[in-house]
Amino acid sequence: MLGKTAVAKEHRCEIKVRTYELDGYGHVNNAVYLNYLEYARSEFLSSIGFDYSASVKAGIGLYISRIAIDYRSPSFTGDDLTIVTVPVKKRAACVNLSQVIMRGDTLIAEAEVVWAFVNEKGYPSRLPERFDLPGFLPPNGKAFDKN
Amino acid sequence: MLGKTAVAKEHRCEIKVRTYELDGYGHVNNAVYLNYLEYARSEFLSSIGFDYSASVKAGIGLYISRIAIDYRSPSFTGDDLTIVTVPVKKRAACVNLSQVIMRGDTLIAEAEVVWAFVNEKGYPSRLPERFDLPGFLPPNGKAFDKN
Amino acid sequence: MLGKTAVAKEHRCEIKVRTYELDGYGHVNNAVYLNYLEYARSEFLSSIGFDYSASVKAGIGLYISRIAIDYRSPSFTGDDLTIVTVPVKKRAACVNLSQVIMRGDTLIAEAEVVWAFVNEKGYPSRLPERFDLPGFLPPNGKAFDKN
Amino acid sequence: MLGKTAVAKEHRCEIKVRTYELDGYGHVNNAVYLNYLEYARSEFLSSIGFDYSASVKAGIGLYISRIAIDYRSPSFTGDDLTIVTVPVKKRAACVNLSQVIMRGDTLIAEAEVVWAFVNEKGYPSRLPERFDLPGFLPPNGKAFDKN
Repeated sequence: MLGKTAVAKEHRCEIKVRTYELDGYGHVNNAVYLNYLEYARSEFLSSIGFDYSASVKAGIGLYISRIAIDYRSPSFTGDDLTIVTVPVKKRAACVNLSQVIMRGDTLIAEAEVVWAFVNEKGYPSRLPERFDLPGFLPPNGKAFDKN
Repeated sequence: MLGKTAVAKEHRCEIKVRTYELDGYGHVNNAVYLNYLEYARSEFLSSIGFDYSASVKAGIGLYISRIAIDYRSPSFTGDDLTIVTVPVKKRAACVNLSQVIMRGDTLIAEAEVVWAFVNEKGYPSRLPERFDLPGFLPPNGKAFDKN
Repeated sequence: MLGKTAVAKEHRCEIKVRTYELDGYGHVNNAVYLNYLEYARSEFLSSIGFDYSASVKAGIGLYISRIAIDYRSPSFTGDDLTIVTVPVKKRAACVNLSQVIMRGDTLIAEAEVVWAFVNEKGYPSRLPERFDLPGFLPPNGKAFDKN
Repeated sequence: MLGKTAVAKEHRCEIKVRTYELDGYGHVNNAVYLNYLEYARSEFLSSIGFDYSASVKAGIGLYISRIAIDYRSPSFTGDDLTIVTVPVKKRAACVNLSQVIMRGDTLIAEAEVVWAFVNEKGYPSRLPERFDLPGFLPPNGKAFDKN
């Protein structure tokens, strides 16, 4: 029971499109959305109590191993976007996240992101216990590899 | 026969990693690879004779509708990277591309990209004949929707 | 009297440093500050009632003709920065702005920026009256070229 | 005599404008030119034999303390730009550089850049002898503070 209350619900953060993020069409450039997703992931980490500086000192890296993003609708300068981040699968050495970018009710983009935990040599590695926080678990509270 | 010689083979271009493209780990940032892929696609378009300015004037847009990228190995400042672009599937209103980023024999990243053709209103649209070049066809020279 | 109340005071906006804006030293990269300044200028324009879309339609461009920026102190991921923008000189075809970036009481960077008004052909041009807003005037409310 | 031949002449490098570097006007964005200048400075460092990795290990930083850039003419996607870098003043703890961006005979932008040498604590610091290369001297071969 206690465990479940500690489990991350979906995380939301807001971002406002800036002029210099547009491309020649006047739309937010496709690569810029990956910046938005990265920003949202760093806010997500803070929200679950992950100490990023401590992890760097401990030689733990969180590397992106895969991003699959579908662009659904363009966005424009001044748009207020909401990014929703939720872990969907947890294994020993990686977490799959679902990230969705909305402008009000309009779906702008949706992405599946795989985060790999790596050690100081850059090899995939189980997260040390003090960094393996409940917030990395999907809303059902279960790690994939324990099922 | 003549047609086949006009069909695009794989397209290659080179890029050198620049200092400002690194992240806090000293690696090329994940979003920067999407810039590299965009650069390679614009070189690809030139190589097949696609007149980008004319397409803009004609109200034709080439929008990215999906990118799935797997990051295989980090790259660093000064690295000489090769980007290989090849169309793998052609439909009436979109092209699927395979794009691979190499440093010598090391695979840095590989991506599947879907390009949608859209009209002036932003709706998916069949490419006008003069822009529907043989170079968009996969190496076997066949459009998917004619099979 | 009425005119004076319409004159821009200094404009302030906030920005939070994002992970992808750092360079290899872990500091905000020098070019990124120019993005911050651009963001602040677009917020400044909104604050004085300048209709950017209408200006584009009318063929008016606001081009940067000069930026001189002194970097005083590094800033880091997660920093909350304040950008203060104030017009300091107004001529017929350009405005000089002072822009200062602060983290609390710490001066991060200070810049002098020259904005040129240009017509559709890209030549320096007097702003049409409906775009020549009181907010472009320095706090003393006087245009340089009327003194 | 020997010394003079080792002194840096002006350094030139080439860059081709990429699609994702444009702003909403279809021009290269003002901040992107600072990226170009940074790229040219890193090539300049290589050309004079400066070992960047060794300097980082030795705790030496090269920080930008000032950039004053005048934008003279817009540039566009596909443009081939030449960046000319030449040191113009050398003091114990900093170097002033002149950097000019050209497209053929057209002046795109010109900048004065001040590079400060800092120690591990981030304080201005005299360069250790093995990093204080003749290539940092202006074409007349004289350090300012020895005159």
